[in-house]
Amino acid sequence: MTYVSSAVCIVCGHEIPPAADLTLCPRCGGLLDIHYDYRQARRHFTRELLAARTDASMWRYRELLPVAENFTPPPLRVGGTPLYDCPRLGAELGLKRLWVKDEGLNPTASMKDRASAMAVVKAVEGGYSQIACASTGNAASSLAGAAAAMGLRSYIFVPQRAPLGKIAQLLIFGAQVMRVQGDYQDAFRLSAQAISHWGWYNRNAAINPYMLEGKKTVAMEIAEQLQWQVPDWLAVSVGDGCTIAGVWKGFLDLYQCGLIHRLPKLLSVQAAGCCPINAAFSAGGPLIPQEENTLADSIAVGHPRNPDKALQAIAASQGAAVNVTDEEILAAMRLLGRLAGVFAEPAGAAAIAGLRKAVQNGIVSPQDTAVHIVTGNGLKDPANGIQAAGEPLDVPPDLEQLQKKLQA
Amino acid sequence: MTYVSSAVCIVCGHEIPPAADLTLCPRCGGLLDIHYDYRQARRHFTRELLAARTDASMWRYRELLPVAENFTPPPLRVGGTPLYDCPRLGAELGLKRLWVKDEGLNPTASMKDRASAMAVVKAVEGGYSQIACASTGNAASSLAGAAAAMGLRSYIFVPQRAPLGKIAQLLIFGAQVMRVQGDYQDAFRLSAQAISHWGWYNRNAAINPYMLEGKKTVAMEIAEQLQWQVPDWLAVSVGDGCTIAGVWKGFLDLYQCGLIHRLPKLLSVQAAGCCPINAAFSAGGPLIPQEENTLADSIAVGHPRNPDKALQAIAASQGAAVNVTDEEILAAMRLLGRLAGVFAEPAGAAAIAGLRKAVQNGIVSPQDTAVHIVTGNGLKDPANGIQAAGEPLDVPPDLEQLQKKLQA
Repeated sequence: MTYVSSAVCIVCGHEIPPAADLTLCPRCGGLLDIHYDYRQARRHFTRELLAARTDASMWRYRELLPVAENFTPPPLRVGGTPLYDCPRLGAELGLKRLWVKDEGLNPTASMKDRASAMAVVKAVEGGYSQIACASTGNAASSLAGAAAAMGLRSYIFVPQRAPLGKIAQLLIFGAQVMRVQGDYQDAFRLSAQAISHWGWYNRNAAINPYMLEGKKTVAMEIAEQLQWQVPDWLAVSVGDGCTIAGVWKGFLDLYQCGLIHRLPKLLSVQAAGCCPINAAFSAGGPLIPQEENTLADSIAVGHPRNPDKALQAIAASQGAAVNVTDEEILAAMRLLGRLAGVFAEPAGAAAIAGLRKAVQNGIVSPQDTAVHIVTGNGLKDPANGIQAAGEPLDVPPDLEQLQKKLQA
Repeated sequence: MTYVSSAVCIVCGHEIPPAADLTLCPRCGGLLDIHYDYRQARRHFTRELLAARTDASMWRYRELLPVAENFTPPPLRVGGTPLYDCPRLGAELGLKRLWVKDEGLNPTASMKDRASAMAVVKAVEGGYSQIACASTGNAASSLAGAAAAMGLRSYIFVPQRAPLGKIAQLLIFGAQVMRVQGDYQDAFRLSAQAISHWGWYNRNAAINPYMLEGKKTVAMEIAEQLQWQVPDWLAVSVGDGCTIAGVWKGFLDLYQCGLIHRLPKLLSVQAAGCCPINAAFSAGGPLIPQEENTLADSIAVGHPRNPDKALQAIAASQGAAVNVTDEEILAAMRLLGRLAGVFAEPAGAAAIAGLRKAVQNGIVSPQDTAVHIVTGNGLKDPANGIQAAGEPLDVPPDLEQLQKKLQA
């Protein structure tokens, strides 16, 4: 069975039933958080229960997900991504031990698949056949894929700069794609108006509290893959903040159920050219919107709609914030590729650059262990892959000339 | 334990020990085939053994793989890809039941990862630290990724037309990439000369019999995921022919071990603009090289080096050959995306087009069941994805104008 109990506003504490189509708090407009009956859950949701389960997808944690007991998992297999022990990459960063969680191996190649799988389940539960979101790319493609597999119609609002690979995915999945002449904020605003106008299911993660519940399963998987040994640090690239908040919720849930006995610190990594959440965290003040000056498009969110959960999570974990330049991100892409065999999109490599900087700055100790989450696949953004990696060697089909070129 | 016994030439029957760096038959230049002691294997390699195994990667079939008993699996998790039951897509094609195996969810996003994982294991076993291949793209990126994760140096020869996403992967993985001014045949020839000159491990699938052993694991997974119920048809897109030959070997191995009780028919699907294997199969004659006129670059192999195993496999399975146009391939990409939520590269969707045509032609019966293998992820080739899917709707950030555009 599932142990979901209610939705509670993180600002005013207002508590409401967990309807399928929750958005913000009806009383104050604050973010809602899904609550569970952990006292009941901990009796049944145990390490042994999970060890006996063959389902390798995110739904293996269904007791701590907001789904009905008789729910049908969506067709695409989300989750069950590999966690790699990366000694050479760890040594390069100056860490005692480093694991890399490759979320780029989800069905549409990003961690957002976890949220979108939850979205289509809740949409169907609520009787919706149309679903929409605004996204810099990954939330969009994951929603389009999940909706296609489930037989739902999807409406996607993307900002002007979304890269080619991501738009191709949306269109192939049959989504109605609106490329909005403007930035993410413009796309978000138009999506909100359209969702309200047409009555679509709202998958915007800064609004819909269930998205975070899907994302938290990545933390559960990491903990289980590490045999419930929790690393010192969890390094996460941060855009609108929903991912890092989800990671924290996952560890908190496991802690409250007694499956883990300590909590990791969160390392929030943003691009130096767009770091409003880290700036607010470091200043201890309100969030001030910023420009979106980074090639890491998936985390280029200058005006996060609801950063509260992210800010609370970083603080509650006794974590830290680090910003990295685009050059450092490109270098991190090379490191991940060359020392771990993982091709990450820029946002997916950013936290490697952040870990390196955090070790150099003394925030993370060389004796610490860390997990890095590759949030999206590098194939989504080949142009930046090429920029990170250089060009191939052009050669004529002749061995003698090849010898000369290789020796040059 | 493993039951590998010897390597046997499929042309002259010459039998030699299974050294790590086998290439072609030293006596006649024919293709070698790896043999196992099936009488011994069938006693231990059982459904029950596999059911009790938690390893979800291709190495769960290690008893029927050419690896030493104490071998260490490579770091990247290859295999364990999902098999989707696709009722809407099946109905669209006119099939009783259709499953889609998404090999695009392998570490470097193609089925070639299975062969490359085997290659790096054999290279290390043979004491090599450098490894090379020529490839239209997927074999190359899979080798580059596997080598990077394993700490080997890779040398990759790609033809001029390899798409951007695939080259970006190679470079990110730190491979030495040679873009050869010419077609696949030119790249292959130069790679052979260079491999011989510098003494690298040879991962060319048309030469190295172990590559097929890696690929056969996809068939083993399919059979196990179907609870050992074998479909009537296995639809495979065909380039150099190694993949379809590997699929056949996998089913044959399971059959000889008593894990399955019948064999599927193979549907060999090639692009109409480059179909030398299908032409040779249909004519019952020798292979005549062709031009490479198709957008499905991964199966654009006009001069397959060693098509014998593929031709034997199609015939032995009582299979059939179907050619599809580029337009049919693009349409199949849309179908896969819209009805299954799977984004395939052109070669990965070609066999869907082939299945549709085979049903229309009466080759495949509407009462038949079929499995389609998506051999590579559509993100590898976003340009063709866009070509298949159309363009997004460009809109200003204004609801009223959006209403007009959506109604238009």
